[in-house]
Amino acid sequence: LTRLTVSSTVSSLLTRLTVNSTVSSLLTRLAVSSTVSSLLTRLAVSSTVSSLLTRLAVSSTINCVTFPTCWTEQQLLKPHEWSYCDYFWSDKKDPQATTGFDVLLHKQLKGKQMQKEMAEFIRERIKIEDDYAKSLSKLSQNGLGALEEGTLGEAWAQLKKSLADEAEVHLKFSSKLQNEVEKPFLNFRENFKKDMKRLEHHVTGLRKQLVVRYAAVEKARRALCERQKDLEVKSHLMEIKLSSKMEEDMKKAQRKSTQAGDDLVHCVDLYNQSQSKWFEEVVTSSLELEGLEVERVEMIRKHLCQYTTLRHETDMFNQSTLEMLDQLLQSVDPLKDREMWVQENKTGEQRPVDLEV
Amino acid sequence: LTRLTVSSTVSSLLTRLTVNSTVSSLLTRLAVSSTVSSLLTRLAVSSTVSSLLTRLAVSSTINCVTFPTCWTEQQLLKPHEWSYCDYFWSDKKDPQATTGFDVLLHKQLKGKQMQKEMAEFIRERIKIEDDYAKSLSKLSQNGLGALEEGTLGEAWAQLKKSLADEAEVHLKFSSKLQNEVEKPFLNFRENFKKDMKRLEHHVTGLRKQLVVRYAAVEKARRALCERQKDLEVKSHLMEIKLSSKMEEDMKKAQRKSTQAGDDLVHCVDLYNQSQSKWFEEVVTSSLELEGLEVERVEMIRKHLCQYTTLRHETDMFNQSTLEMLDQLLQSVDPLKDREMWVQENKTGEQRPVDLEV
Repeated sequence: LTRLTVSSTVSSLLTRLTVNSTVSSLLTRLAVSSTVSSLLTRLAVSSTVSSLLTRLAVSSTINCVTFPTCWTEQQLLKPHEWSYCDYFWSDKKDPQATTGFDVLLHKQLKGKQMQKEMAEFIRERIKIEDDYAKSLSKLSQNGLGALEEGTLGEAWAQLKKSLADEAEVHLKFSSKLQNEVEKPFLNFRENFKKDMKRLEHHVTGLRKQLVVRYAAVEKARRALCERQKDLEVKSHLMEIKLSSKMEEDMKKAQRKSTQAGDDLVHCVDLYNQSQSKWFEEVVTSSLELEGLEVERVEMIRKHLCQYTTLRHETDMFNQSTLEMLDQLLQSVDPLKDREMWVQENKTGEQRPVDLEV
Repeated sequence: LTRLTVSSTVSSLLTRLTVNSTVSSLLTRLAVSSTVSSLLTRLAVSSTVSSLLTRLAVSSTINCVTFPTCWTEQQLLKPHEWSYCDYFWSDKKDPQATTGFDVLLHKQLKGKQMQKEMAEFIRERIKIEDDYAKSLSKLSQNGLGALEEGTLGEAWAQLKKSLADEAEVHLKFSSKLQNEVEKPFLNFRENFKKDMKRLEHHVTGLRKQLVVRYAAVEKARRALCERQKDLEVKSHLMEIKLSSKMEEDMKKAQRKSTQAGDDLVHCVDLYNQSQSKWFEEVVTSSLELEGLEVERVEMIRKHLCQYTTLRHETDMFNQSTLEMLDQLLQSVDPLKDREMWVQENKTGEQRPVDLEV
């Protein structure tokens, strides 16, 4: 579904690209220039003129991808959006010549890794809470002070019970952390790496096709160059010594040169088709990755918010574990305790009297 | 100082006891009865009459302490107060015949033990808090998720920092628990057991004197009995056969009997003095112990209240460790994060164009 949405965005973008007057005039200009250049080739202009034209060319090809030269102005596909589809067209200058698309893929994998590490972090927190709860619970069952009596004894017993309640609160926190934070982190995009691998494979395949087709263009260009030189030689010979044989040779060379020109045009067509396909795929996939990243950030934000909610909840529940204890401490009454204790432990209230003789 | 206060209370009590009309009339009656009984002894009444008088006696001695017989009515020294000085005059019926005062001392030692156990319990709680704080602090320094970027990265870093803050809160709790609860429990009455030992020794000494003096009374009573029998025999012989020798013998027996009667009166006096001293000491000490127990209960109550105050404080401080995190989570913005990341990582924004021929 995401893919479909992205694709429709892309086609509307591409439509915009076509409709957009600057771009379309540029494309027209490019079309014109390529027509002119093929015409010039067919007319077999001198190599000096041809190399001059190359130096003035409106595009240059880097790592088999063809970019406009610096003086060409392009409008962004999605202005003001800092969209992935606008900023990753070149390869990096590193030794591996990492592609822009690989930079995007790497960002995704790093994001996935972060999500996994956050889950791991939360797991550690869960363990800490479990240990804390276990210790509190164990201490609350400890017999220390159990023989304290009366209202003070009740308050003390409640203090110990409050530790069990605290333990319960922390266990609940730990269990909710697991279900509402750790698990969502772990379960979010389980097959993500495979998905990214597939995407990478697809785009890399298209890029490789581009390399193959660019090599074909180069080969055709070299062949045309040979034919042009041959034609030049034949033309020169014919000028020096005109004969029907010479004329025949030159016409043959002219036909071969024209054929080589047509071959080159065909190769360039194939190359441009391939580059278009790669371009479209990169735009589509970039927008897809961009959407995935927004989704990931929002998912993480949402669950970290859940974490703070649970923490706040825990502090509040913790407060309430003291309510009964606070009440009982207010009711501690040493005089009442004495009365109770005396009633239970008195040995006899008759005082001694003098012995009679 | 406590001892002084208690002593003055006791003397006012004893004054009250003397002034109190019922008691004073009782004492008068007792004095009368003892005068009568010594008179009867001196008049050498028959043993039948004497044993009858014993059966009708207004007091009976149990374990060397003399109590009024059941039909005697006494008013409590401190009515409605359930005072220790009113309910522990008899020994227990257990095999050791534990004295009432020992029951009171045992209560004190148990109280001291409870105070010690509570300190121990608080110490365990301190350990739990320290461990918890240590774990939280360690986790907060953990590198997991450290490569998360942008506003989400800031929120995540704050989440980790909040764990260090939580650790700090629990360390503070633990440190305050130690200074404001555990230490007061430990330092309260450091020489208490020795003090109680001294008190016990003192009262036990007086009680032993009572035993010795009661034995003297019994011995004197038996001697008087012998003398009375002898006098009876002599009187009988004189009635049968009057002679100056007989009369001399009877008069001698009469003198000896009177002497034995005086001895008994003296022994009873010493015994009663001893019992009074013991009585006064027990009243004084009981009131002292009663005061100590009130003080102990209030001390414990006060510090358990301090415990709940610290717990409440901890929960509140804990809440505040989340403030910054809550703010930063509100500010998490995937679009802003993308802008930052794209600015830092973009490879090139010039889009490919068709290759010219």
